[in-house]
Amino acid sequence: MSQYERPNIAAMQGYASGEQPQDGRSIKLNTNENPYPPSPKVAQALADFATEQLRIYPQPDARALRQAVANHHGLAIENVVITHAGDEALRLAVTTFVSPEGVVASTEPTYSLYPVLTQIQGAQMVTQALEADWSLPADFAASMNQADAQLTCVVNPHAPSGHFTSIDALRAVAEELTGVLLVDEAYVDFVDEQGPQDATELVRDLDNVLILRTFSKGYSLAGLRLGYLLGAPSLIKPILEKTRDSYNVDAISQVIGLASIEDQAYAQQTWRTVRGDRELLAADLRQLGFTVADSQTNFLLAQVPEGANAEALYQGLKTKGILVRYFATPRLKDSLRITVGTGEQNQRLAALLTELLAG
Amino acid sequence: MSQYERPNIAAMQGYASGEQPQDGRSIKLNTNENPYPPSPKVAQALADFATEQLRIYPQPDARALRQAVANHHGLAIENVVITHAGDEALRLAVTTFVSPEGVVASTEPTYSLYPVLTQIQGAQMVTQALEADWSLPADFAASMNQADAQLTCVVNPHAPSGHFTSIDALRAVAEELTGVLLVDEAYVDFVDEQGPQDATELVRDLDNVLILRTFSKGYSLAGLRLGYLLGAPSLIKPILEKTRDSYNVDAISQVIGLASIEDQAYAQQTWRTVRGDRELLAADLRQLGFTVADSQTNFLLAQVPEGANAEALYQGLKTKGILVRYFATPRLKDSLRITVGTGEQNQRLAALLTELLAG
Repeated sequence: MSQYERPNIAAMQGYASGEQPQDGRSIKLNTNENPYPPSPKVAQALADFATEQLRIYPQPDARALRQAVANHHGLAIENVVITHAGDEALRLAVTTFVSPEGVVASTEPTYSLYPVLTQIQGAQMVTQALEADWSLPADFAASMNQADAQLTCVVNPHAPSGHFTSIDALRAVAEELTGVLLVDEAYVDFVDEQGPQDATELVRDLDNVLILRTFSKGYSLAGLRLGYLLGAPSLIKPILEKTRDSYNVDAISQVIGLASIEDQAYAQQTWRTVRGDRELLAADLRQLGFTVADSQTNFLLAQVPEGANAEALYQGLKTKGILVRYFATPRLKDSLRITVGTGEQNQRLAALLTELLAG
Repeated sequence: MSQYERPNIAAMQGYASGEQPQDGRSIKLNTNENPYPPSPKVAQALADFATEQLRIYPQPDARALRQAVANHHGLAIENVVITHAGDEALRLAVTTFVSPEGVVASTEPTYSLYPVLTQIQGAQMVTQALEADWSLPADFAASMNQADAQLTCVVNPHAPSGHFTSIDALRAVAEELTGVLLVDEAYVDFVDEQGPQDATELVRDLDNVLILRTFSKGYSLAGLRLGYLLGAPSLIKPILEKTRDSYNVDAISQVIGLASIEDQAYAQQTWRTVRGDRELLAADLRQLGFTVADSQTNFLLAQVPEGANAEALYQGLKTKGILVRYFATPRLKDSLRITVGTGEQNQRLAALLTELLAG
């Protein structure tokens, strides 16, 4: 530890990301990547990219991509800021709206990056436990107001449970909150297609809602680091003009992002496949005695059968080359979070779990 | 303005970057880009990149590039953190070492991003004027200690003057400072080749020195957003493990960075050419009556001839398709900051200035 480090930084733990072996030998069902490659249009965009362009600074606000995102959601360009993945979007929301010694709020459990960003800011994290079925408590907004939350982050569909909260319920929360509501829609692309799936209508109607989107999962671009925030112009403007790094999106990411969002047919086909395989995998896991929450994401939270040990199963799978995620927290310690892979990967997982449970 | 914005954010102005026309028609001598394209190895690395790799998260700490940077400087991997360009490196230094209501120090004039990052953090900026010849005042470290500076940023070679401060002088400053010294070596690749040019030896000897490097200028990669910090492991570790975004360098940037730093022969050839052209351009400008500070960078600070108006010259050049930088501050308002372009671009600039001054 350095004497120069700020006390809040010295006292905190960093974010613990899932294992990222780069050897291509493991079956990675641990960090919720899309099992299918990016659109062929991405390879084309990369092949067409002239490296001489890298000599000069990129378009500062990623204008063409920003406009394409606005069009995609039926919003204005002023409602959009492009970010260096969801991580930067979350950090910027904290930087812009949360004072040091202010309060960030979320549910328990939630995405484990939120408390890390809160500690870096020197702010406090306040959480309220989700109901047994992973839904928001009825007094969620009231509790967050009581705690003086400047920013309340809700992952929807929820991680790590996969639970989907209706847009009407989120609207009620946003209307009651005295601070900003950030709806983290990292997994929204995998929600079943009936009904309105996303909260973009809230951006049109309310001045305190930010929606986070990422290209990492839905567009198979976790390696690129690209995402965006949607919100009222009054929320987007200080992020766009003040708190983000001036050239936060590189020139290659801008063209790849554009190629990806324009190829909706390809992306949507991967989402349909993942949704179908999710239900098959859930059925297989239930067959093996797991309790599996209904999921509207590309992962399943699977509580291990009576008598089995989740951490031992995680280790057993790892030994056999399959990575899943295990969280050693009171509410999650009996569960595995399993990313939906290709059909073949899911079958291999189910077969190995059968062996391990019999063992 | 949103009621949800923090007061320090609401009160501040964002960073004003130089104009970035993307039409390819302007001669851009305004933001210190290298006039030559990236190494041919970059095009090769991009052609060899398999887009399927983008599906998964990148190597979290850009390990291979980190090791190559360490080798390049004769340092250990623990001395290196790779960043999303110099902007992120500066932001992380502020985040990690400067408390809200703490103090960031620099010279006057200096890089105009420092006060912006300081205001975002809610901290105070303290500056001391450089001497008439752009050198550091003798009591610089004492003044910064007096102000309780937690982080002192010195651009070397200096922007916007191009003045080079010796490593011995920087060592004396670092040894006297009670806080961290960040030496911003964004332009160090353009320093003349005699003698030690960079401050890496200070990293070996002192626990309070950070050195910032960027691929933007020396390696012609401003469009990519890639840089790094060098420092004692005790300074690097909290940035690497806590305050940076978990996957701050995308997979494509990692391979392009590696290809670039390994092709030293190409990069050094562009530096030699720029150094030679810098001296030719300086001579031409002096011939026209400009007072030009000796520069060890890829730009010149040129005070306009008696009776001429710097802002009018900036506008006149812009009308003719040449962009240079004009700063409307007391010490710089009579000068233009001119990036060294290709020989042909520099001659076109000199010809136009001749016309405008005769006009």
